Amino acid sequence: MNDFNFYSPTEFVFGRGRENEAGFYVKKYSGSRMLIHYGEGSAVRSGVLDRVKKSLDEQGIYHCELGGVAPNPRDTLVYKGIELVKAEGLDFILAIGGGSVIDSAKAIAMGACYDGDFWDFYSKKARCEGALPVATVLTIAAAGSEGSGDSVITKEEGMLKRGAGSDYIRPRFSILDPELTQTLPPYQTACGATDIMAHVFERYFTNTTEVEITDRLCEAVLLTMLKETPRVIADPNNYDARANIMWAGMVAHNNIVGVGRQQDWNSHSLEHELSALYDVAHGAGLAVIMPAWMEYVHNHNVLRFCQMATRVFGCQMDFENPEATALEGIRRFRQFLKSIGMPINFAELGAKEEDIPLLVEKLGVGDGKRAGFMELDRSDVTNIYKLAVKAAL
Amino acid sequence: MNDFNFYSPTEFVFGRGRENEAGFYVKKYSGSRMLIHYGEGSAVRSGVLDRVKKSLDEQGIYHCELGGVAPNPRDTLVYKGIELVKAEGLDFILAIGGGSVIDSAKAIAMGACYDGDFWDFYSKKARCEGALPVATVLTIAAAGSEGSGDSVITKEEGMLKRGAGSDYIRPRFSILDPELTQTLPPYQTACGATDIMAHVFERYFTNTTEVEITDRLCEAVLLTMLKETPRVIADPNNYDARANIMWAGMVAHNNIVGVGRQQDWNSHSLEHELSALYDVAHGAGLAVIMPAWMEYVHNHNVLRFCQMATRVFGCQMDFENPEATALEGIRRFRQFLKSIGMPINFAELGAKEEDIPLLVEKLGVGDGKRAGFMELDRSDVTNIYKLAVKAAL
Repeated sequence: MNDFNFYSPTEFVFGRGRENEAGFYVKKYSGSRMLIHYGEGSAVRSGVLDRVKKSLDEQGIYHCELGGVAPNPRDTLVYKGIELVKAEGLDFILAIGGGSVIDSAKAIAMGACYDGDFWDFYSKKARCEGALPVATVLTIAAAGSEGSGDSVITKEEGMLKRGAGSDYIRPRFSILDPELTQTLPPYQTACGATDIMAHVFERYFTNTTEVEITDRLCEAVLLTMLKETPRVIADPNNYDARANIMWAGMVAHNNIVGVGRQQDWNSHSLEHELSALYDVAHGAGLAVIMPAWMEYVHNHNVLRFCQMATRVFGCQMDFENPEATALEGIRRFRQFLKSIGMPINFAELGAKEEDIPLLVEKLGVGDGKRAGFMELDRSDVTNIYKLAVKAAL
Repeated sequence: MNDFNFYSPTEFVFGRGRENEAGFYVKKYSGSRMLIHYGEGSAVRSGVLDRVKKSLDEQGIYHCELGGVAPNPRDTLVYKGIELVKAEGLDFILAIGGGSVIDSAKAIAMGACYDGDFWDFYSKKARCEGALPVATVLTIAAAGSEGSGDSVITKEEGMLKRGAGSDYIRPRFSILDPELTQTLPPYQTACGATDIMAHVFERYFTNTTEVEITDRLCEAVLLTMLKETPRVIADPNNYDARANIMWAGMVAHNNIVGVGRQQDWNSHSLEHELSALYDVAHGAGLAVIMPAWMEYVHNHNVLRFCQMATRVFGCQMDFENPEATALEGIRRFRQFLKSIGMPINFAELGAKEEDIPLLVEKLGVGDGKRAGFMELDRSDVTNIYKLAVKAAL
């Protein structure tokens, strides 16, 4: 096990109707002038925006609004948000939505306390040294941004998708009401579930040895997703399955399952190029990329893939042919993704084989190697995209 | 799943030699005048106290000391600590030790900010409304107090062992260096491991349904303990096994594995009377009580015990006789405890059957019932103690 720090100071407020307590928690965490940030209208239609505003009004908290965050949130709206915060002298950002809205809110929170261009944090030109407090009312179980210090934003010019991280943007509180996710259509629900599982796998595949506790915690989240996701796809109103998935999504990404170990994240990077180029859902892109990545790297440590296959996917270990077990585990993962309605290859995603050179180019791997479970050079990355082109069950 | 709040704001600083960073973290969390609180001398002998003092000196942080915390920490030393804090105008309590030292530090931290008797928090006469900041350098993996808002203190007059809890006493930071636990003798190591497993079982046995995520997280910790504990008993210097256990001990008790569900805690209460009366190690008492409690209550929900037996203890499910599977799981738990050197009955613990009426009396169950997985009245509690008298493999 490697040395590590773990810090997750967010207060999680979980359960039915708890968005009605937003005002109480804003006051508890000393917010007085709020920016309410939300997406393309579902928060309006579902009534959650109104309930949160009512709750703020009851506490006498000033608020103004900025909606319109799109999936793969853009820098252009972040600039607008920063301007609004400065013009109105706001002191607290409340995101109502999923990962895109929360990530956009985090970018505004950092940018509002920085003299330069907020993109500096995403292009790694600057380190965040302060941010306005952020809080969330989560409406989609997926990104885990409600409990993380991470944010991913897409720069419209060139469609560059990049991430930034800081403890300053960890939410002060996050309200998780599983009922709010019951209106999500099955496809988006499945995209979220895929993202949650991917967050775990990015941590699970490691070269760090002697990490039984985090291995087992990773497997706990994965097993939960295997049980609960099909129940929600079959019955979107299943509160309990929604609740288990919603909490699993937080656990998957506040790093409690990933401390003390090298992590990978190459599947996320390869996927970011797909969702930036085609504007597809992140989870759908991951469903295509991640099993292809697994197939490509499985011989780097075949027994680790056997561990996944047996502990998570219930395979019997083939002691005469461990690789068969490893591949069966990957096959079952892809089968699971297909069963919940996810695309599993380029065609189903709407991606094109002829774009692979462009994807590789934008990934910026150059003549070097990408670090991770297995180091990947330009040709490795190309081969993984190619495996994803023709993937089938 | 039930509604819940989860809040664990402690910064965990994990790895080799990280106690040398104590001064840095005290400064980060605005401490300037420290009480260093420790136990009966092992922190002195091991050199960790000196290393921490050197680290504080390097940051120019004033400190004074109060050692002598005994296992099952007493109110008498807490009063001394409160006096010292007030006399010296201290503003931060740093505990170096295990659960007893940390719990004593938390009591001092609450008492120093309260005009009345600190025992009011433990006798439930008052609620904590503020406390000095507490931080820890953990030297024993067991109690989980490094990540919890709980404290258990024994009142010498009448040997009453009682608990108090508040978010105010959650440590600001906790330094977890697994090397510090390598000097622990096997018996104490095994007591700690038993305590960790008990913290999980108290949460695992619940009447709340639809809690797959926390069930799986509980099982993750238990499976880790089953793997790592025998390795440490066989080789106390096994850093990696120590590291896995140390992190498992935190995860077991900051409530990430217990949110959204009714919990039990009757085994802990029954044990508290044993350790208060005989001054035995808490973990040893739990090894005697917890399997006896399991035997007594298993028919309350036999399939939940089958889940434990199959998922944690690797039993094959006997579908014609579920109870046989449940009992086999409990048998394997007791066998495991015995294999790591724990007592499994009254005689091995040094407890006496004839004291059972006294234990029941002090537990204070009266004519009522204790809430939990299965409600327990006076006769139930008596029967559980009796099962613990004669327990064998």
